[in-house]
Amino acid sequence: MVRPEETICAPATAIGGAIAVIRISGSQSLDICEKIFHPLEKSIKLVDQKGFTVVFGEIWSGDEVIDEVLMTVFRAPHSYTGENSVEISCHASPFILRKILELLINCGAVSANPGEFTQRAFFNGKMDLSQAEAVADIIASKTSSSHKVALNQMRGGFSAEISSLRHELLNFASLIELELDFGEEDIEFADRKELKAIITKVKELADKLANSFMLGNALKNGIPVAIVGKPNSGKSTLLNALLMEERAIVSEIPGTTRDSIEDTIVIDGIEYRFIDTAGLRETSDIIEAMGIKKTHEKIDQASVILFIDEITDTPESINKRTQAIREMIIESEKRLIVLINKTDTASEDRQKELKRKINLEEKDTLLFISAKEKSGLEELRFSLSDIIAKEKLSLDDVIITNVRHYEALLHVSESLGRVISGLDDEIPEDLIAIDIRQAIHYLGEITGEITSDEILGNIFRNFCIGK
Amino acid sequence: MVRPEETICAPATAIGGAIAVIRISGSQSLDICEKIFHPLEKSIKLVDQKGFTVVFGEIWSGDEVIDEVLMTVFRAPHSYTGENSVEISCHASPFILRKILELLINCGAVSANPGEFTQRAFFNGKMDLSQAEAVADIIASKTSSSHKVALNQMRGGFSAEISSLRHELLNFASLIELELDFGEEDIEFADRKELKAIITKVKELADKLANSFMLGNALKNGIPVAIVGKPNSGKSTLLNALLMEERAIVSEIPGTTRDSIEDTIVIDGIEYRFIDTAGLRETSDIIEAMGIKKTHEKIDQASVILFIDEITDTPESINKRTQAIREMIIESEKRLIVLINKTDTASEDRQKELKRKINLEEKDTLLFISAKEKSGLEELRFSLSDIIAKEKLSLDDVIITNVRHYEALLHVSESLGRVISGLDDEIPEDLIAIDIRQAIHYLGEITGEITSDEILGNIFRNFCIGK
Repeated sequence: MVRPEETICAPATAIGGAIAVIRISGSQSLDICEKIFHPLEKSIKLVDQKGFTVVFGEIWSGDEVIDEVLMTVFRAPHSYTGENSVEISCHASPFILRKILELLINCGAVSANPGEFTQRAFFNGKMDLSQAEAVADIIASKTSSSHKVALNQMRGGFSAEISSLRHELLNFASLIELELDFGEEDIEFADRKELKAIITKVKELADKLANSFMLGNALKNGIPVAIVGKPNSGKSTLLNALLMEERAIVSEIPGTTRDSIEDTIVIDGIEYRFIDTAGLRETSDIIEAMGIKKTHEKIDQASVILFIDEITDTPESINKRTQAIREMIIESEKRLIVLINKTDTASEDRQKELKRKINLEEKDTLLFISAKEKSGLEELRFSLSDIIAKEKLSLDDVIITNVRHYEALLHVSESLGRVISGLDDEIPEDLIAIDIRQAIHYLGEITGEITSDEILGNIFRNFCIGK
Repeated sequence: MVRPEETICAPATAIGGAIAVIRISGSQSLDICEKIFHPLEKSIKLVDQKGFTVVFGEIWSGDEVIDEVLMTVFRAPHSYTGENSVEISCHASPFILRKILELLINCGAVSANPGEFTQRAFFNGKMDLSQAEAVADIIASKTSSSHKVALNQMRGGFSAEISSLRHELLNFASLIELELDFGEEDIEFADRKELKAIITKVKELADKLANSFMLGNALKNGIPVAIVGKPNSGKSTLLNALLMEERAIVSEIPGTTRDSIEDTIVIDGIEYRFIDTAGLRETSDIIEAMGIKKTHEKIDQASVILFIDEITDTPESINKRTQAIREMIIESEKRLIVLINKTDTASEDRQKELKRKINLEEKDTLLFISAKEKSGLEELRFSLSDIIAKEKLSLDDVIITNVRHYEALLHVSESLGRVISGLDDEIPEDLIAIDIRQAIHYLGEITGEITSDEILGNIFRNFCIGK
């Protein structure tokens, strides 16, 4: 629903904390706020304020004071939305928040929908669609890597490049369509060699971006890790040891501790998410006796498998079990780290012997640990972070994290592939033109140059209120 | 711990929401922020900004961009704390919040303790102690009445009056002490009649304020209500009916719904808190069979008792049970509302008969309801709100909500009572002087003119971080 004529309002901060911020945006922002605001300096009028200034005063409901507040004024187009806007900074009481919103609505504002501020920023040309999507990703980002990728995207990232390539394609499409207009005359306005070069360039970029999605998705949502192994091999001890360290790190700065700490650890700014740990939390490992089916499911969901076995086991039995896991992940990109636990119960020689006798594939990793005594955990953390380091991409590259972009890029690549082979086979211009138009369409969907109510609805529905 | 030389920082908003605000206060605020902030307009310097201006730009960590932010500059003494201050408005991601705080701390700021911003406001004379305490109450206020009382207090409330009376007392105390200096000479500097008049005036005020504490405390913390009655009389149906209506009201404005709705209802801006409703939530009432001891405990904690009985019961048995409840609350200020439930199962005549035959005390209330069909609930809500309306105080009076103030006022009243009878009995000046000094001391404790590390510690410990 697009309703630029309305002035919208919403709380922009969560309930709790010391202060709360209410956002108002739209042509009537200043007039509406003026009606309920009494500045400390009586002579001041909100509507006369320049942008980027703050006024101290009180919100009144009739003749009753509701709160002492700061009003920050923004003037179109120099605001987040590009419209006249006001931010009210008040005491963070649920009552005050509700009351001020009520007053604003009574004075003519309407409650903002999720993401409506950002949607207005998009419609007013303050950002393109992929940048708008990145705003939600930034707010959700918990690690330095997911944050970096989202921030790159919000600050323009691949938007400009895609947009310029799209315009080059548009030019060629027009030329080819011009040829079609001339029909039988066999005139070539579009240089076929140049056309093929630009098509190839765009396709390579689309492929490169699409290929970055696996990593991007892992960065955004965390890398799923499964801990598997036979009962009593020390799975829950290992999980607890890793999480304990994490908790100590997370709670360093007061006031920023996460409400509920999930089963995740962060290494070098990348989140590793332990999946299906409910069973591991049971004091007894009996639940694991449920067997191979459950293990299968866990491994299916994971990108990294931590397989734990015991140092006192025979190399043959360890090899047998490792082989079983290997078979489950064959032909996948999943990484296997084999952890031989309980090193505190055996000699150095035993480790050497096992190192010789355990058969792993080259890309697998073998580590010796004592979960109980917390030894070897540093190496494990290093091995986990090394998995990402081995990816060909660096965080400074443009990385796709959004499934919508990924799908659009696959379409672009597919269409352009058809164009390239079409050019080689000298198929008719009109078919080539259709495929180019299709690629242009999908490129435009990424940046929002082409869009539909459905796409917009899907995107902004997932935003929080006040953003 | 007082450390005015340090520059403090803390998040001022809760985690979650679209934007977050970080507060920095202290002499180095602007210099510290300057180190990590890159304004969009390169030529702008934060340290050159006037107070109440906002600058748009980026926070950098080394050469890495952390976020696009708004920096609001406040200049001493025109800030909340009275010091130079900056508020950073950033995207509400846990990562960004942590990172910016880390950067501020690395540049020389320290993490603020709970309430430290308000503590500084107190030390810098921006507010007295009772006003500072009201800040926490405002943030916690959920209803219009608790909000109004807290806001009155924050805006000066009784502070000015108490402070001026205290200074009058101080004058007299000095005069009397002067008399003591002259020893045997029997000179009266302090007019005894005038002294008695002012002492009486202060004592009356102290008593009036102390008397308002019962109501104030109820407004601040909600009025505790017990629902009691025999099994299957409809207690849980009634509770659900009342809460359902409440939920519909609370969730009117999107984004402001409480996270977990408690067992409370708000009538005319006053909160009624149903106590010990766990048992009522059971689908069966069997738990109530635990008997009279539990009912006793509930009634002990409540200010209002809703006693439910059934319309099909005999007047004799209803009277017997009501009488039992009456005995439990005898000599207390507790209010009893007797609800005859299930009116849908009986005739009007039956109601009339019961009305005649049920014996209640004058201050008790008898209502006929059908919890199942939600009839009679409006009358119940009216009866509840009428309890407060019948209190002699109105919300426009100054009302004490703070147990620390209440205790200090009782001490004041006690000391001044001794002074008055001392004056009547013409006891020696030195004893009178001691009691006046004591009253002065306790009055000073309320406003913070007299204070100790212990008092300050107790007060600000309960604040949230960032306030």
